[in-house]
Amino acid sequence: MPTVKIRIASAQINPVVGDIAGNTSLIKRAIENAHSQGAQILLFPEMAMTGYPVEDLALRPAFRRASIAAVAELAKTAEKIGAGEILMVVGYLDEGPQPQNAVALIHRGSVVATYVKRHLPNYGVFDEFRNFVPGQGTLMVRCCGADVAIAICEDIWQDSGVVPEIAARKPGLVLVANASPYERKKDDRRLALVQKRAREFGAPLVYVNQVGAQDDLVFDGDSLIVDAQGKVLARAPQFEEQFFITDIEVESATSKPDLDLHCDYKPAQPPVAPMVAERLSDEAEIWAALEMGIRDYVSKNGFSTVALGLSGGIDSALVATLAVDALGKERVFGVSLPSRYSSDHSLSDAQTLAKNLGIGYRVIEIEPVVQSFLAATTLAGIAEENVQARVRGSLLMGLSNQEGHLILATGNKSELAVGYSTLYGDAVGGFAPIKDIFKVDVWRLARWRNELARKRGEIEPIPVNSIEKEPSAELRPGQ
Amino acid sequence: MPTVKIRIASAQINPVVGDIAGNTSLIKRAIENAHSQGAQILLFPEMAMTGYPVEDLALRPAFRRASIAAVAELAKTAEKIGAGEILMVVGYLDEGPQPQNAVALIHRGSVVATYVKRHLPNYGVFDEFRNFVPGQGTLMVRCCGADVAIAICEDIWQDSGVVPEIAARKPGLVLVANASPYERKKDDRRLALVQKRAREFGAPLVYVNQVGAQDDLVFDGDSLIVDAQGKVLARAPQFEEQFFITDIEVESATSKPDLDLHCDYKPAQPPVAPMVAERLSDEAEIWAALEMGIRDYVSKNGFSTVALGLSGGIDSALVATLAVDALGKERVFGVSLPSRYSSDHSLSDAQTLAKNLGIGYRVIEIEPVVQSFLAATTLAGIAEENVQARVRGSLLMGLSNQEGHLILATGNKSELAVGYSTLYGDAVGGFAPIKDIFKVDVWRLARWRNELARKRGEIEPIPVNSIEKEPSAELRPGQ
Repeated sequence: MPTVKIRIASAQINPVVGDIAGNTSLIKRAIENAHSQGAQILLFPEMAMTGYPVEDLALRPAFRRASIAAVAELAKTAEKIGAGEILMVVGYLDEGPQPQNAVALIHRGSVVATYVKRHLPNYGVFDEFRNFVPGQGTLMVRCCGADVAIAICEDIWQDSGVVPEIAARKPGLVLVANASPYERKKDDRRLALVQKRAREFGAPLVYVNQVGAQDDLVFDGDSLIVDAQGKVLARAPQFEEQFFITDIEVESATSKPDLDLHCDYKPAQPPVAPMVAERLSDEAEIWAALEMGIRDYVSKNGFSTVALGLSGGIDSALVATLAVDALGKERVFGVSLPSRYSSDHSLSDAQTLAKNLGIGYRVIEIEPVVQSFLAATTLAGIAEENVQARVRGSLLMGLSNQEGHLILATGNKSELAVGYSTLYGDAVGGFAPIKDIFKVDVWRLARWRNELARKRGEIEPIPVNSIEKEPSAELRPGQ
Repeated sequence: MPTVKIRIASAQINPVVGDIAGNTSLIKRAIENAHSQGAQILLFPEMAMTGYPVEDLALRPAFRRASIAAVAELAKTAEKIGAGEILMVVGYLDEGPQPQNAVALIHRGSVVATYVKRHLPNYGVFDEFRNFVPGQGTLMVRCCGADVAIAICEDIWQDSGVVPEIAARKPGLVLVANASPYERKKDDRRLALVQKRAREFGAPLVYVNQVGAQDDLVFDGDSLIVDAQGKVLARAPQFEEQFFITDIEVESATSKPDLDLHCDYKPAQPPVAPMVAERLSDEAEIWAALEMGIRDYVSKNGFSTVALGLSGGIDSALVATLAVDALGKERVFGVSLPSRYSSDHSLSDAQTLAKNLGIGYRVIEIEPVVQSFLAATTLAGIAEENVQARVRGSLLMGLSNQEGHLILATGNKSELAVGYSTLYGDAVGGFAPIKDIFKVDVWRLARWRNELARKRGEIEPIPVNSIEKEPSAELRPGQ
């Protein structure tokens, strides 16, 4: 069968939910890149224009209108800068008249077609039934001789519906826009799925995923291109924005398209080496996810610095190290808040950590404040123990109010699962970076990070004593 | 057309989510009542066996199996106590194999049919798409000569689907099991809907609703029976459990039933006067909803007492009065926590309130604790103001830990909407009874409650000064 060579640009971008102006800038930059490198097709993630997940923002008509207007404006802008010949596939929020999770196909200055997501996930972290109505049918567009089918994320995770319908239409190429959140080892499942689908379609598949963190979700990117046999042609790194060009061979005129763009755009194409990023180890992958979680939460919510209590223990040591990796040492502030039950090593381990990391550090003795509480009313046992944690929480929040830091809570998943924390005490904070990490993985990550430092010839950030000692809340003697 | 007289028992009960054993007891008591009063049909609310909303409990196979087993066991129990001839319609959680919001029709010791809810609400407070799969078709059962159709809650709020399909089958009687949360003035909309549907069905309609509070939802009951012309035959009160008997005239053999119970059960039926509860005023309705919210949150979560800070202001005065109405004065404890910025009237108004209500009361001066915070670190402006609120929050939580009270937060919707509160300060507490009440309604309800006391010849609980004075957070001079 006759084939054509298509140059595909994939834009693994990090949009901000609700920030249509900012996301437009990211998209525009990718269009300029695609144009300068002679791409014929440019694919963005699911809902690139609005960020994902928009949740109940989808229910605001004004926001839907802004999203639709931004896509129309983008089409004109692309034409104006001379990139109108590229087929651009941009995820956005549409309405018809109910909210829809859609992609716009932009060509020669206008939106020439749209496709609406049909399989709406509504389990785990997804609530799409609440926010969107599903689309119908499939979309096939002829571009540069190739018949290009479109799908959005969950559409290809379901065996029924979109997948067999696209396969039956014999596409030359399939483009899938995604906002697929990170889970441990999901990159393997994602690769296997994309390979399986490409074989079912009998066509190369371009899978572009969003990257970046949004509240308690992290999107890892890991965008992929495979050929019709499932062979990996390109793969982007996880946890970083990436724009990459891939040249692929596509069978031409395989289908009966819904729309023929009648284009034969073939800019000069000096060859490029395909992007195939190295895979991360399990620990490196988790570390990168947590690091991105902190960095994006801080920046997307308008903070510039973070502060946290340093107990001398492993949890706060790990969070401080993650924060420094995410933000740089100048933007992280540690506070030790010892009570009379704090052991000597707690303070010295915290000091060592702060010195290793090079972060701002201060010590506030909480004993006089605790005593003033106990003088104000009679508290004993657990109630007295919790006073210490609440004094620490209030002092950290005071520093947050005074100096503008986001407070990081340092609780891990094991503690939170069993309720081993003080409400309004050590649970205080605007973001809890390791709330999804079991204690056993806290130790594993700490050792891995120190090992990484050794390999790099750097100081090991986390004091060995913080890793080796028995954990204790130190709220009563000998706890 | 020939008619039969049917005696219907309606069980407006207050189940606890997840407490299958406790709910079984409630259901059993209603069966005994129905049996002793010669009822032929007994209708319960939606998901009476499990409580509503079960949310992600629906996703636990063991919980689904427990629900199904409890319904089977209930059928045997009813037969054993001689009530097997009654047609009992019991809401429960089924699986097939996905979770289903279902009702069981129990007769002569076994489940003779089930109906699964078809219209799953997924807006506002509802997330049923996440938890259930919808049913299919309609169900018509012949009982004592009458052809009885079944629907569940949202099924009758939608014009398409269940409503026209039941109407086309010409039912003699329609039973609707509901868990319909309270909203202001919803009782009027509910009545109008039930009347409209009865006319569309051309048959009497029995609408039984759950009563009671569950977390941030309140179910108001307001169960209803109307005839085929929409005339109200019976109506239960809002916000209290109610078991009531209604004799209605039903056209016989109107349809082709899916199942004929071949029963002709006609126990001796001394006549009963129909239940038609008096309607509540707007204020009385809101008050009853808030009162039930507190009472059920406290009891369903295993607390016995509540405590709250009394500032001398209107919000805490209203919450304290609601708590006394809900729980009795012996179970409510007030704490004044004055600082140097508290005006004299704040303390005296709080004292007067506590005296009016007859509740336990103590004063804890927070100034020494605040000063110990300011000595520990340098805080000024908003940061210093927030210290006062956080000291109060920590002291209340200390009392909660020490004495076992649930702490009530006193913020209203107007404050919360604009963020006028201190995180980990006055926002502290396990339950926030007036978080959905705008400030303007706080004043209105306070005046209404005092007026009610005057009418009853009781002491007006809320000091006039707390109602009349300008609101102030009193965290800085002249605020």
